[in-house]
Amino acid sequence: MRVLGIDPGLRTMGWGVIDVAGSRLSHVANGLCESRGTDLGRRLVSLHAQLTDVLLRYSPDCAAVEQTFVNKDGAGTLKLGQARGIAMLVPAQAGLEVGEYAPNSVKKTVVGVGHADKKQVEHMVKMQLPGVVLAGTDASDALAIAICHAFHSQTAQRWAEIRA
Amino acid sequence: MRVLGIDPGLRTMGWGVIDVAGSRLSHVANGLCESRGTDLGRRLVSLHAQLTDVLLRYSPDCAAVEQTFVNKDGAGTLKLGQARGIAMLVPAQAGLEVGEYAPNSVKKTVVGVGHADKKQVEHMVKMQLPGVVLAGTDASDALAIAICHAFHSQTAQRWAEIRA
Repeated sequence: MRVLGIDPGLRTMGWGVIDVAGSRLSHVANGLCESRGTDLGRRLVSLHAQLTDVLLRYSPDCAAVEQTFVNKDGAGTLKLGQARGIAMLVPAQAGLEVGEYAPNSVKKTVVGVGHADKKQVEHMVKMQLPGVVLAGTDASDALAIAICHAFHSQTAQRWAEIRA
Repeated sequence: MRVLGIDPGLRTMGWGVIDVAGSRLSHVANGLCESRGTDLGRRLVSLHAQLTDVLLRYSPDCAAVEQTFVNKDGAGTLKLGQARGIAMLVPAQAGLEVGEYAPNSVKKTVVGVGHADKKQVEHMVKMQLPGVVLAGTDASDALAIAICHAFHSQTAQRWAEIRA
């Protein structure tokens, strides 16, 4: 199973692709989609095109997107929401199931604690995917989301097998 | 000039198309894109497809989207942001310039006061576009956004002519 993880952002959107075979994870690719300029429409088009390109290049079987942190900064939440709309849209347009995970759930799965910092997440991503070269913090987070999805999918599958 | 106005929403997205010739406005079409179900990805795909269909059918020259009202309900703002991302993306993908107007600015242009209610907006839309049959309140708001964009574009053009 090939999993695409996406860490949504309007300026920088991190992505990471991993292969999952049983309990064995392996790194396929990771990178950043970046949008520049002040024209919101063009920035969203640029993110949509770059993310579609990632999907076409790596053909993942499923995807997972981080549930955005909602805070008191309404304008910031709105911006992130617009970027997140693109992050959800692209894999769904390709017919993939898209899992959603809260940041704390991703950290708890990958690091073991819900309040781990970025450095700890990066360290555990490197441990799980030996030899990986990270394109940046957002790409590290995206790989963590993919790992989280792989883990939860396997757990759900095992439960289904036990129940069958 | 043909203008597409969009009132973004995750459940219901209103749209309205008008033709502008000098100071004369005429109604072309209006309607609602609706998304059902709980799967966010599929809902966004559905909105994207319906809105793309509107663009292909009516070939507008430019578009305008309402600036979303940011409030203290972070989760609501995020949902709206995701829908708004799609509303901005689709016309930008078609290569159109996309104007953005705050709700108060739309009301002030169409009704004359920034705090007009939905009924007043609907009344003025019907006055400006005689014989229009509205698909709903969100479609009425979308036509108001299109009217607002037509007005502001003309004003900008006149200033440019004076300055030239």
